[in-house]
Amino acid sequence: MATTDSKTIWARAESLRHFIATALVRVGLPDTDADRVATLMTEADMQGSDGHGAIRLPQYVQRIEAGGINVRPEIRVVHERAAMAVVDGDNGMGHLVVSRAVEIAIAKARDAGVAWVGTRNSNHAGPASLYARMPLAHDMIGLYFAVGNANHLPPWGGMEMLLSTNPIAAGIPAGDEPPVVLDMATTVAAYGKVKAKAKRGEQMPEGWMIDRQGRPLTDPTRASEGFLLPIGGHKGYGLALIVGLLAGTLQGAAMGRDVVDFNVDSKTPTNTGQAILVIDLAAFGGAGPFKGAVDTLVRDIRESERLPGVERIWLPGEQSHTRRAANAESGAPLAAALVDDLDRLATRLGIEKLER
Amino acid sequence: MATTDSKTIWARAESLRHFIATALVRVGLPDTDADRVATLMTEADMQGSDGHGAIRLPQYVQRIEAGGINVRPEIRVVHERAAMAVVDGDNGMGHLVVSRAVEIAIAKARDAGVAWVGTRNSNHAGPASLYARMPLAHDMIGLYFAVGNANHLPPWGGMEMLLSTNPIAAGIPAGDEPPVVLDMATTVAAYGKVKAKAKRGEQMPEGWMIDRQGRPLTDPTRASEGFLLPIGGHKGYGLALIVGLLAGTLQGAAMGRDVVDFNVDSKTPTNTGQAILVIDLAAFGGAGPFKGAVDTLVRDIRESERLPGVERIWLPGEQSHTRRAANAESGAPLAAALVDDLDRLATRLGIEKLER
Repeated sequence: MATTDSKTIWARAESLRHFIATALVRVGLPDTDADRVATLMTEADMQGSDGHGAIRLPQYVQRIEAGGINVRPEIRVVHERAAMAVVDGDNGMGHLVVSRAVEIAIAKARDAGVAWVGTRNSNHAGPASLYARMPLAHDMIGLYFAVGNANHLPPWGGMEMLLSTNPIAAGIPAGDEPPVVLDMATTVAAYGKVKAKAKRGEQMPEGWMIDRQGRPLTDPTRASEGFLLPIGGHKGYGLALIVGLLAGTLQGAAMGRDVVDFNVDSKTPTNTGQAILVIDLAAFGGAGPFKGAVDTLVRDIRESERLPGVERIWLPGEQSHTRRAANAESGAPLAAALVDDLDRLATRLGIEKLER
Repeated sequence: MATTDSKTIWARAESLRHFIATALVRVGLPDTDADRVATLMTEADMQGSDGHGAIRLPQYVQRIEAGGINVRPEIRVVHERAAMAVVDGDNGMGHLVVSRAVEIAIAKARDAGVAWVGTRNSNHAGPASLYARMPLAHDMIGLYFAVGNANHLPPWGGMEMLLSTNPIAAGIPAGDEPPVVLDMATTVAAYGKVKAKAKRGEQMPEGWMIDRQGRPLTDPTRASEGFLLPIGGHKGYGLALIVGLLAGTLQGAAMGRDVVDFNVDSKTPTNTGQAILVIDLAAFGGAGPFKGAVDTLVRDIRESERLPGVERIWLPGEQSHTRRAANAESGAPLAAALVDDLDRLATRLGIEKLER
């Protein structure tokens, strides 16, 4: 682990994974479950999803200690057809519940061509792209929807935060090019990014949040005094609502007033809902022609004429792809304040600190 | 048909449907196909989708006369699994091809729980919401994606229009409340709205389009000199790309540089792609509990606290629902300039003018 400036500390992936797994085992998760969660959380930091990786560990631990997460869940299918299932997560860690849902969706898509698997009684599961990317290795497309774990978004024209940042993610296989991976909150900024700004002591740009008087809010430490803004005004409000209906209501999971704010309540089960749609390219005439067409499109876009002052046109997911490759050498960049938090957590749990 | 001001003429639905069907039969469509298309085009005007209804008739007729649309297509399934199909439209009218795709998806979803049906060799099919709404009568959810028929959107940071307005639509059943129906271009404005502004002689607000120097473009008659802006900046670019990959590339339909601009080229087959995902509520524990939850959510949102100056909070699709009900009495509001166009078309085709 090396320090490049006063604010960023680089952690080796294996060290980070080991630290997270040890902490989770200490609070009661079985070894294999802790490993699974730690691997996914580390992947989040390694790809630059710094609002959804190790930064969440203290909160997860606090929630487990408060009894708000079931460390020995019986994850099971409660509804099933050829092309769908609903998985009840029994209030287990979201990473475990959603991983299971994606596995089932991949298996079903192999037969039916397409499959939708949703979750109920799940929990926060980290960055959406982790799950949308899982089908890629099987030459399948992944589309992922989730209900956020705290309502930060009012309906368009409203003041009451009845909606969350409800993200959409998509993983699209390519051939020689990196896959196209979109991961976006339906708000201008995800709340995890607000938290990361606060942790780094930075201000937010105007347009991320407004306060209850409708004025721009740029201080992330005052985030609780305002709410996020949807992309495209009423359109983003509509998207957040539809995503919530698909990821939450459809599976019998929380949506609207039922959403538990996991930032202030560590005990009440969140009944989080997520949904993955998996599409098997083999059913559509084979992966080869599709991936070739994606490669062509990616290159057409990347090499197209740029606006003055623009150095490069990026494809969705390309920057994360580049970062993942670079971080494989350097390790994951963690804010110094986060490492302090992790050190305090280690002391409290009586485990070794993150290796440095 | 009554004239309320110098610019709007109200047409009875049955008159409009009859006029459109007669025109389409005159240029070679079989009676039943012409009726089907005319019914859907009239529905578009009746729900206020004025960029996608009768306004498109002169263009469709021109395209059919130029040989750019097959009036006697053999629409057939080319790939099929339990939960998916790809429909080849044989370059027929898009309304016919997509209607067939939705019918197949509904039938498959009834067994498999969920079904995805895409199209290739289709054509422009009118407003996305028409198709997302079709599964509602079966207590099913519809999600619809389409590749637009002209590229008006560059990648984020770019100048070359490689993407279209690629819309997303969703139809979500409710109980006593109107269904939640989202229909949105992934651009700030749909190109149909730009055309409607031009037809009405109105200016566009800033933020819809920019010119090739990056300056706001507000005159819709100069639309060909600029391009549309995506919602949420890079996020809308990502969404437009993913929608295009799902609706176009996946089915072997046009995407990127292959998209034919049907505003300037009436002959080349467009190879338009669309996709519908249908989700049967019966597979997820039954429609009753779901629709009850949607009703509650809709009311919570509608009755929630409003920002100062906001008279009402609307749900997606609620304004179209209200307009559809009002227009059932008054008829469809058509711009006077559009009625002039339709009169000229009638004269040219030797059919009776729209009844007044």
